[in-house]
Amino acid sequence: MKEELRQLLQTVADGTLSPDAALEQLKYFDFEPVGDIAKIDNHRQLRTGFPEVVFGLGKTPEQIVAIVQAMRSRTPLVMTTRISQPVYEQLKSELPDLNYFPLAQICTLGKAPDIDAEKGAIAIVTAGTADLPVAEEAAVTAELCGYQVQRLWDVGVAGIHRLLTHKQILHAADVLIVVAGMEGALASVVAGLVDCPVIAVPTSVGYGASFNGIAPLLTMLNSCATGIGVVNIDNGFGAAMLACQILRVARRR
Amino acid sequence: MKEELRQLLQTVADGTLSPDAALEQLKYFDFEPVGDIAKIDNHRQLRTGFPEVVFGLGKTPEQIVAIVQAMRSRTPLVMTTRISQPVYEQLKSELPDLNYFPLAQICTLGKAPDIDAEKGAIAIVTAGTADLPVAEEAAVTAELCGYQVQRLWDVGVAGIHRLLTHKQILHAADVLIVVAGMEGALASVVAGLVDCPVIAVPTSVGYGASFNGIAPLLTMLNSCATGIGVVNIDNGFGAAMLACQILRVARRR
Amino acid sequence: MKEELRQLLQTVADGTLSPDAALEQLKYFDFEPVGDIAKIDNHRQLRTGFPEVVFGLGKTPEQIVAIVQAMRSRTPLVMTTRISQPVYEQLKSELPDLNYFPLAQICTLGKAPDIDAEKGAIAIVTAGTADLPVAEEAAVTAELCGYQVQRLWDVGVAGIHRLLTHKQILHAADVLIVVAGMEGALASVVAGLVDCPVIAVPTSVGYGASFNGIAPLLTMLNSCATGIGVVNIDNGFGAAMLACQILRVARRR
Amino acid sequence: MKEELRQLLQTVADGTLSPDAALEQLKYFDFEPVGDIAKIDNHRQLRTGFPEVVFGLGKTPEQIVAIVQAMRSRTPLVMTTRISQPVYEQLKSELPDLNYFPLAQICTLGKAPDIDAEKGAIAIVTAGTADLPVAEEAAVTAELCGYQVQRLWDVGVAGIHRLLTHKQILHAADVLIVVAGMEGALASVVAGLVDCPVIAVPTSVGYGASFNGIAPLLTMLNSCATGIGVVNIDNGFGAAMLACQILRVARRR
Amino acid sequence: MKEELRQLLQTVADGTLSPDAALEQLKYFDFEPVGDIAKIDNHRQLRTGFPEVVFGLGKTPEQIVAIVQAMRSRTPLVMTTRISQPVYEQLKSELPDLNYFPLAQICTLGKAPDIDAEKGAIAIVTAGTADLPVAEEAAVTAELCGYQVQRLWDVGVAGIHRLLTHKQILHAADVLIVVAGMEGALASVVAGLVDCPVIAVPTSVGYGASFNGIAPLLTMLNSCATGIGVVNIDNGFGAAMLACQILRVARRR
Amino acid sequence: MKEELRQLLQTVADGTLSPDAALEQLKYFDFEPVGDIAKIDNHRQLRTGFPEVVFGLGKTPEQIVAIVQAMRSRTPLVMTTRISQPVYEQLKSELPDLNYFPLAQICTLGKAPDIDAEKGAIAIVTAGTADLPVAEEAAVTAELCGYQVQRLWDVGVAGIHRLLTHKQILHAADVLIVVAGMEGALASVVAGLVDCPVIAVPTSVGYGASFNGIAPLLTMLNSCATGIGVVNIDNGFGAAMLACQILRVARRR
Amino acid sequence: MKEELRQLLQTVADGTLSPDAALEQLKYFDFEPVGDIAKIDNHRQLRTGFPEVVFGLGKTPEQIVAIVQAMRSRTPLVMTTRISQPVYEQLKSELPDLNYFPLAQICTLGKAPDIDAEKGAIAIVTAGTADLPVAEEAAVTAELCGYQVQRLWDVGVAGIHRLLTHKQILHAADVLIVVAGMEGALASVVAGLVDCPVIAVPTSVGYGASFNGIAPLLTMLNSCATGIGVVNIDNGFGAAMLACQILRVARRR
Amino acid sequence: MKEELRQLLQTVADGTLSPDAALEQLKYFDFEPVGDIAKIDNHRQLRTGFPEVVFGLGKTPEQIVAIVQAMRSRTPLVMTTRISQPVYEQLKSELPDLNYFPLAQICTLGKAPDIDAEKGAIAIVTAGTADLPVAEEAAVTAELCGYQVQRLWDVGVAGIHRLLTHKQILHAADVLIVVAGMEGALASVVAGLVDCPVIAVPTSVGYGASFNGIAPLLTMLNSCATGIGVVNIDNGFGAAMLACQILRVARRR
Repeated sequence: MKEELRQLLQTVADGTLSPDAALEQLKYFDFEPVGDIAKIDNHRQLRTGFPEVVFGLGKTPEQIVAIVQAMRSRTPLVMTTRISQPVYEQLKSELPDLNYFPLAQICTLGKAPDIDAEKGAIAIVTAGTADLPVAEEAAVTAELCGYQVQRLWDVGVAGIHRLLTHKQILHAADVLIVVAGMEGALASVVAGLVDCPVIAVPTSVGYGASFNGIAPLLTMLNSCATGIGVVNIDNGFGAAMLACQILRVARRR
Repeated sequence: MKEELRQLLQTVADGTLSPDAALEQLKYFDFEPVGDIAKIDNHRQLRTGFPEVVFGLGKTPEQIVAIVQAMRSRTPLVMTTRISQPVYEQLKSELPDLNYFPLAQICTLGKAPDIDAEKGAIAIVTAGTADLPVAEEAAVTAELCGYQVQRLWDVGVAGIHRLLTHKQILHAADVLIVVAGMEGALASVVAGLVDCPVIAVPTSVGYGASFNGIAPLLTMLNSCATGIGVVNIDNGFGAAMLACQILRVARRR
Repeated sequence: MKEELRQLLQTVADGTLSPDAALEQLKYFDFEPVGDIAKIDNHRQLRTGFPEVVFGLGKTPEQIVAIVQAMRSRTPLVMTTRISQPVYEQLKSELPDLNYFPLAQICTLGKAPDIDAEKGAIAIVTAGTADLPVAEEAAVTAELCGYQVQRLWDVGVAGIHRLLTHKQILHAADVLIVVAGMEGALASVVAGLVDCPVIAVPTSVGYGASFNGIAPLLTMLNSCATGIGVVNIDNGFGAAMLACQILRVARRR
Repeated sequence: MKEELRQLLQTVADGTLSPDAALEQLKYFDFEPVGDIAKIDNHRQLRTGFPEVVFGLGKTPEQIVAIVQAMRSRTPLVMTTRISQPVYEQLKSELPDLNYFPLAQICTLGKAPDIDAEKGAIAIVTAGTADLPVAEEAAVTAELCGYQVQRLWDVGVAGIHRLLTHKQILHAADVLIVVAGMEGALASVVAGLVDCPVIAVPTSVGYGASFNGIAPLLTMLNSCATGIGVVNIDNGFGAAMLACQILRVARRR
Repeated sequence: MKEELRQLLQTVADGTLSPDAALEQLKYFDFEPVGDIAKIDNHRQLRTGFPEVVFGLGKTPEQIVAIVQAMRSRTPLVMTTRISQPVYEQLKSELPDLNYFPLAQICTLGKAPDIDAEKGAIAIVTAGTADLPVAEEAAVTAELCGYQVQRLWDVGVAGIHRLLTHKQILHAADVLIVVAGMEGALASVVAGLVDCPVIAVPTSVGYGASFNGIAPLLTMLNSCATGIGVVNIDNGFGAAMLACQILRVARRR
Repeated sequence: MKEELRQLLQTVADGTLSPDAALEQLKYFDFEPVGDIAKIDNHRQLRTGFPEVVFGLGKTPEQIVAIVQAMRSRTPLVMTTRISQPVYEQLKSELPDLNYFPLAQICTLGKAPDIDAEKGAIAIVTAGTADLPVAEEAAVTAELCGYQVQRLWDVGVAGIHRLLTHKQILHAADVLIVVAGMEGALASVVAGLVDCPVIAVPTSVGYGASFNGIAPLLTMLNSCATGIGVVNIDNGFGAAMLACQILRVARRR
Repeated sequence: MKEELRQLLQTVADGTLSPDAALEQLKYFDFEPVGDIAKIDNHRQLRTGFPEVVFGLGKTPEQIVAIVQAMRSRTPLVMTTRISQPVYEQLKSELPDLNYFPLAQICTLGKAPDIDAEKGAIAIVTAGTADLPVAEEAAVTAELCGYQVQRLWDVGVAGIHRLLTHKQILHAADVLIVVAGMEGALASVVAGLVDCPVIAVPTSVGYGASFNGIAPLLTMLNSCATGIGVVNIDNGFGAAMLACQILRVARRR
Repeated sequence: MKEELRQLLQTVADGTLSPDAALEQLKYFDFEPVGDIAKIDNHRQLRTGFPEVVFGLGKTPEQIVAIVQAMRSRTPLVMTTRISQPVYEQLKSELPDLNYFPLAQICTLGKAPDIDAEKGAIAIVTAGTADLPVAEEAAVTAELCGYQVQRLWDVGVAGIHRLLTHKQILHAADVLIVVAGMEGALASVVAGLVDCPVIAVPTSVGYGASFNGIAPLLTMLNSCATGIGVVNIDNGFGAAMLACQILRVARRR
């Protein structure tokens, strides 16, 4: 931001821009209102490396349609998460070219970038089959950002050999995302085996004393292995964004 | 109890014993008051297979001395748990022949039974060095009950090979006790490797979001591996008692 | 595992097997992928004494059908837990020979082993009528593993004589499973009466401050009686597996 | 209060009292300030049947001395709870005629009423020896209110026969106070045996998952037996006050 | 129980009864199995003063019908709680003479005892209109036990004068039941005004940080006023049973 | 109240009113029963500055209709909160002139006061679009009390420039209401920027470890910025009432 | 801030200031580093109306001395909170002119503004004597900001008449601060009586199920009365700052 | 590991190594027992990129000395965390060449690698002065791993300009560590400003409803900004290890 601010100040110093006009310009610099309901953060890509993504939970279908339509003219790919099948069908009637990833509960509009294997390898590992929706939210998000994803499903620690057999997948990754519910022990075991960052995603899979994901969340936060960053329960999207962020840094350097 | 009751009823039917006398006898049948403060359950050994053990936490040294002295005439070995070093020293001045296991925080008076390897093998596994006091409470308790104990310390999942290397110890055991704090993932991994019952003991080792043992407790309760029974946080004594109970059944059959 | 590894290494040393071929063989040694969604742990029976069981919660009917069909060729009895009536009906249309235990919410395919009373006696005790689904999950699981089960329903501590009257059932058991919701006090009382291991299953039966099973879970973890191992809330299946594991050890010795 | 208000209004109607004077009188009707720190509720005895008692926790010794000295001229017996030994010694130097009940942590000044067995019988039952301080707080409080107390210590459910043997004590009581820590199951068992009100006092005795008394608190709130009222963790005083209140009603009728 | 046991022993001593026959008789002394699902505690009235009541939550309509039909021949009034309108309609088709109290969610079969004002007065106070279902569960239960009930609805502390105006109702009561959700402050205020026992019932009325009744539960447990016994969240039934128990003691003396 | 009481006492002193009549009058002074279900607090406006508002949650439509009809004759505007669309439709059939604010879930009957900009400016700020229902509850409530409201939606801290750009709106306000779910960080940032009171409303927007609003609630309570008062989760109504209360004080002085 | 930014831009437009110099100036605009450990926010008074206050908890005495010495040249009164007696004594040796309010645990350096009764009246009400330290933190803070404070101690709801007698103090206040531990019911009762904003401060006074202030915190958040803003447990300072902020708005208008 | 395993198998295939010898070698491949108390994971550096670090919490000084002495011959730098000043002094007497970082509570033995700015830039940001110990644990750890660290202390969101002024520090970093207690809002604000991964460390700084770090932990997990990985409360060490892991990946690629 510093550089942009300097340039803006320079145009003011040059007399090209009046102070009041500069003030106005700063105001509407990098977001755009959608009716009364939202403010799209157009400069988020410049600032954080990824465009704003619409979080579907808690928004009405009408609000989502309005926001998506405002965004589509600005960005080649509009992505919306946490869209259940019935909501998707409501959106589809207004946005006929909408795509849907049912397991990941993600909608897109527009063209995703091509996968670029040069940008680094993300491996996503799940403890069980029931963790798939969260893992797919992560996988689809990363792929829509143009990253190659290696999926490794159902390798929970109750049969540790299933994981150990696939050590080469783990070692080939630049970043690992571990998705696990119930007791979430997989994250610790994986982090003890690899030399790359591990992003741990607790899931609400389980019952009773898993308390909708508190058990694996605590497991992952208290891991005796190092190199683990934890995201919110069921937050596959956030895990993917962090993984992409890590690989962007790797590439930038 | 049924058999004893039948015999008592028989003596009443025989006229050997009056109903009122029988009633009295039943009252003081199997416990004995210690002053005003406690009632020793002398028949607990008959009933549950192990004599009553004095739980030291929350009792004053004076109360412990009184209880121990009342018990010593009835049982060859009096065992007291949760005795810190300073409390031990207070007890010692009243009970000069008291023995002390400082790491396990256990006191004994009298002679422990000889270790009988025929009764079955208990292996105790810890995740880290800081789990030792709890693990030793379990180990000493089992040994004082006459069981052989195999110790396997510091094999947490951050370096899973340390555990895998010792698979033969795990496989040789009839019952396994897994003692782990922090995220407690060791219990799941061990239970996935063996075909004997696993007793999981969460410990309060850790900090922050381990919440004094809640994190490993939840991990162990939610384990994706089967064959695990969980005891209270830091309850090495209870784990040992359950292990001995399991081996007694095995022997009885 | 050690023995198998030694033999494999021997074939490599013999030159019968190339190192690369051995590496491949290790990979697919003891599990088998089901499409992209799961990895069946075929060697679990060898390793832990019981075959892998399909946990139905969080899996779609399609995923369950795929996994069950992959398993049926490998194992005489495929067992699936946490199958509600509507899901069962969906599965049934794809798997016409599926059996269903409605109270226990368990499906099976294939032939269960005969009950073998010689393997030891499991008694299952409930506090109330509402605990039956969890107790039946335990009972059916144990029976499907070939163990004899004695059921003792509705003997909660509000009328302790109902329990005391049946002491002979308690004393005849080799392992006891106590299933209780609300305050869960039954586990402590039972464990104080018997000399065999007690597996305590808290249930989510209750309301208000039972917090979906937290109250009985804490009760059971803090029991003043010894010889109790606790499993997750409503985990009848896990309790049965631990009971069977205990009896297998008894038999093995 | 209605009657008093009517009489006050009558004196105003009579012209005996001016409205303003009546207003003043109402203001200072039934409490009295102690310096800046407290307001003694002198009419509490009239209103609730028992005089105000000083709760020692969180007050400095100086504040306690000031309050006690203000109260002693108004009431024959001043009672202060939660006074540790060192605080007692500080108070004693200012109030030489202070009495102290060390186990109950209660101080008194003045003469307690004689015990009147006609007022009804309170039995207090504890699960273990470590519950004694709380039970004694209840017992001493009830005795200082003039009620007869029957103590029954260390009859926890791990050896249920210790309790069953003393059924006659339970049945002789008009009100029962059950004091228990750890899992607190004693309250349910007792309430299932008797036909009088049971006041349950969870204690912070225990460790790990007893969470300083949460476990027995939840047990008692969720009891499957009826006729139980629960008070705060370690609140022996409150239990005694409720017991006395119940017996006053019995007597009043 | 002692007296009965003595008589039974006497018949054995007389030779009227053989020991084995006595043993049998003790077994089936005071409960009765309902199929496989329940054990009716017929002697509960003798033991605790009130007959067993069927708790509807978690039981299937079929189970409730079976239990009610078994009980109706033994007791003049069968009472079932926590029966929603749809369940009631299912029961009604099997039990045409079933009565229903829709607000209280209670069903009865048979004739309730007449209200006997001599047995003492119970007043029930609610903070708000939304607390009515819980308060009615208490009121109907007490009335079905033959006690007179005074209802005082919607006198929460946000307008304290509504409560103060009705002080005479509070003072006329022998036992008070205070039913309150949200912050539950009403219990403390009421208990500070009266000289009879107060039973506090927290309700799940509220939202957000009321956490389904935890907020008023904690309020009531921590009350600065004395003479309060707390029951479980929404437990109107239990509050009434405790109130009746208190009045029975008053009458017995 | 003091003044009114003095006047009432004066009429008694004058002999204009008998003590008994005065007592009666005090009873029905400032509330009015609605059948058996509620007591309308007519004097609340005199006492707290705002009329009583009907809280719709937990009341049946029939109860709401009865209360609203009783209130409409006393107050120009009857306001009901937490009315979902289906409940509104039920109410509408009985109260045809009912108005509905669907996003705010508020119903009104009668004429709201005109907005008076002189009374002070309330600005309401939300973190995201999903917070709108709570924010609208606040906004409509304040407007129905006659206060001008400035809405500023979707300015969460993930794009802090959206907020900073609107600093003039923040600085123009006399009171700020900040409505935020997820992590709720917006309240701290806003409070650090302004010199007027900030009312923070945590919302249940979010998932996983937001625990239905606990996360933003804790954030707001622990804010490192000063000048923040927090209300219950999703309590837009309460935030508006506090804001109006603050502006009334400002005006009164 | 807008106005300052405009002026700064104007000086750049005038050529009086180069863009780079402006950038520098903005950087060090309104805070000042203290060694490596802190950044004093000198412009906080301009921005929020009150100078930065040093929060003593978690800082070493050395750090506090360094920060205070840096601040004293900039502001007439430096205020530090949460200073225990021993820490005060350490600070005093370095800062001989330091003042200390022992009950409030506040230190000051320099001259406080005179109390100006015209600025509005703050009344502070406590439930009990043990709440005094928190209430004094509030009172001293408000007085150091120049506001007049009325103290009303020990008027908890167990004796509601103590509060009702002082209604005139409540009604005379422009802002009320209610400080209460245990169940915290006082805030609801007070807010139902007054027409000014109420700031509620839960305290950690209590034991057992008060959970160090959670009980009164929940009570206050769930209050059935309106017009309450809640601050953190024991946060007397924050309550005073909010009260002052409210009165500043009143004055500004 | 795959490569090493292949080479080992190759030596077996070559006949250079017997199968039994290979088995032995695998066993003691990469850890080493320290007496009975620990197993040093010598190959952790090969496996995860960093050597094993001794976690001091819960270990006795004697245990730490034994472990450190065993490690020093294997690794140029032995690092121990969570060493308080008194423990350091005990260690120092046994290990005279021990270095100590008192604020970070870290001990080292041996020579740290030189800082290599080419490996990437880590910036560490704290909200307040009290967060310094945790931040320094992170900073010293990263520096001991050879990474350059930029410290930015005391830039919490209550004065957001302090942070915005230092945007250039944020933008210059390759990885950011944000350390914050109280409400922890800083992490969200920072993550919204930058395009590199953010590691969030909640601290136990705060009081009352911060619940020893739960409040900032939840804040960070629920952040509305993306690109954040969270570690345990007060886990500065873990944050640094994750940061180094991220930079190693960047370098490796």
